[in-house]
Amino acid sequence: MSMERLYESVQKKGPVCVGLDTQYSFLPEYIKKKDASEGEKIFEFNRRIIDAVYEEAGCFKFQIACYEALGLDGMAAFANSLKYARGKGCVTITDAKRGDIASTATQYAKAHFSGDFETDLMTVNAYMGEDAISPYYPYLEQGKGLFVLVKTSNPSGKDFQDLTIDGETLYEHVARKVSKWGEPFVGDSGFSAIGAVTGLTYPQEFERIRPLLPHTFLIIPGSGAQGGTGRDIAGFFRDGVCGVVNSSRGLITAQKGKSEGVDFTEHVRKAVLDMKKDIMQWL
Amino acid sequence: MSMERLYESVQKKGPVCVGLDTQYSFLPEYIKKKDASEGEKIFEFNRRIIDAVYEEAGCFKFQIACYEALGLDGMAAFANSLKYARGKGCVTITDAKRGDIASTATQYAKAHFSGDFETDLMTVNAYMGEDAISPYYPYLEQGKGLFVLVKTSNPSGKDFQDLTIDGETLYEHVARKVSKWGEPFVGDSGFSAIGAVTGLTYPQEFERIRPLLPHTFLIIPGSGAQGGTGRDIAGFFRDGVCGVVNSSRGLITAQKGKSEGVDFTEHVRKAVLDMKKDIMQWL
Repeated sequence: MSMERLYESVQKKGPVCVGLDTQYSFLPEYIKKKDASEGEKIFEFNRRIIDAVYEEAGCFKFQIACYEALGLDGMAAFANSLKYARGKGCVTITDAKRGDIASTATQYAKAHFSGDFETDLMTVNAYMGEDAISPYYPYLEQGKGLFVLVKTSNPSGKDFQDLTIDGETLYEHVARKVSKWGEPFVGDSGFSAIGAVTGLTYPQEFERIRPLLPHTFLIIPGSGAQGGTGRDIAGFFRDGVCGVVNSSRGLITAQKGKSEGVDFTEHVRKAVLDMKKDIMQWL
Repeated sequence: MSMERLYESVQKKGPVCVGLDTQYSFLPEYIKKKDASEGEKIFEFNRRIIDAVYEEAGCFKFQIACYEALGLDGMAAFANSLKYARGKGCVTITDAKRGDIASTATQYAKAHFSGDFETDLMTVNAYMGEDAISPYYPYLEQGKGLFVLVKTSNPSGKDFQDLTIDGETLYEHVARKVSKWGEPFVGDSGFSAIGAVTGLTYPQEFERIRPLLPHTFLIIPGSGAQGGTGRDIAGFFRDGVCGVVNSSRGLITAQKGKSEGVDFTEHVRKAVLDMKKDIMQWL
C-alpha cells in the first residue's frame, strides 16, 4: 500500500515532500556545461538531490509539466528520475492532475501506475466526477494511491472552488465526495488510498475541510515559494501527522545566489532540514 | 490564428473532428504483425488514417492519455503523429485537459505550443481558476488556441458540474468565465482563441450554455461511441456552425469486425463521410 508506505515514511523521516519540479534554469553552471542533453542534465541534478536528501524527505513529488515542457528528452528524464527514486526505496508522487472520462482515465492509470512512468501515487482532478477517478480503483487495490484536488493554493483557486452551494463551498462538496470514494480503501494506518490536495492559503479554510476528510491523507502545497510557514501547518497536525507538506522551488533552488564552492546539494539538504525543523518545532 | 484556421477548415471540410485516441488494440492485424515497436505501429495507423481522411475532417484531436499509456515509445508516436498532421496542413487539437497553478501552466503551455509536442489547440481544465489559463495567453496572441472544459458528457459529469449556485449550475458559471476570458482574443470570424468543451448529453443543457458563449467555438464530444446523433447536433448549429463534433472510437475502429480484404482506411473514411452526412443533412 503506497499510502501506508507514505504514512510510515513520514513518521520516520518527517513530513517534507521534496518537489522535483525541475526546470533547466535551476541547474548549477557546472552541470549545465556538461556534454549531455537538457534532460540528461536534469536527471543528474535530480539524482544528486535524491542521493543527498532521501533520508530526510518523506517523499518526492515530480511535477510532470516541467518534463513535458522539454519534449521527449524531458519525458526520458522524468522516467529515469522516477525509476531512480523508486529504486532507492523512496515514495514517489507524480503531480499530473489528470482528469478525464473513464476510458481515458483508464489510459492515464496505465500510464502512471505501470511501465516507463510508474509511480506510487499521483494527483488527479475530479471536475468530471467519479468516472474520472474510478478507473484507478483496480490499481488502488494493488497498492497504488491518489491525491484528488480539493482546495488549491493559487490566487484564482477561489474562482470556482469558493462558490457556495447549499451553504457549503464547492471545495467542501468535493471533499465530501473524496472522503466517500476513499472509504473502501482505508488501510491499517486509518488512511485511505485516496488522499487529497489541500492548499495552504488560509488556516481557517483548512479547519473547514479537515472534519470532512477523517481518513484522508493530504498533500499540502503552498509552503516555501508560495508563502506558508511551519506554524501555519502545525495546527493541521495537532491530532497527529495527517499529510505531507510540499515545497519545490524553495528547496531545489536553495543554491541560487550562493557560493558555487560548496556542492549545491549541501544547500538543498540544509533547506530540507530547515523546513523539517520549522514544521517539527510546532508539533 | 489557429481558431480562425479551424473555423475556416470546418466551413470547407465540415465539422467532423477525427479523434486519434489510438489504442494498440484498434490496429489491424497486418500492422500489428510488423517488426516495429507498438508506438511505431500506432504512428503508421494514424498516418494512414490522416492520409485517407484529411480532406474530409475539419480537424484531428489527439487524446494524449493513449500515448502516455505506452511510455516513451507512445510519446514518440504522439510527437510523430502531431508533426505529420500539421505537416499536411491539418488543424490539430491536443486533448490533454491540463490544469495547474500559473508556474506549472507556463510549463504545459511550453510543452504543447512548442517543441516536440507542438499542437495548434489544446484542451484545459479550469478547476483552479484563471491562473490555470492565463499563462497560455501569450501563446494565444501568437496564434494558438484553447478549449476549456465547461460541460462534459460522461455520466458523472453531473457530480459537480450540475451543482447549483445562485440559481445557475457550476458549468454555467464556468461558461460565463470562459466567455469573459476569451473576449480579448476574439478574431475576424467572431470567435475567440478560447473555445469550450461542451459535451453532447442533453440538448436542453446546450440550450442553456449557448447564450453564455456568444463568441466561443466549441468541441462537442459524445458523438459515436458515446451516443449523440447528427439530429442532436443540428439544433446547436442552427445559427451557423459554431464548433466541431468529435468522434474517436466510432470512426477509427470502423474496420473492426469487417473484412480485412478491404484496406482499413476505407472503412474509416466511410465512417467519417457518414458522420459528416448525418450532421450536414440537418443544417
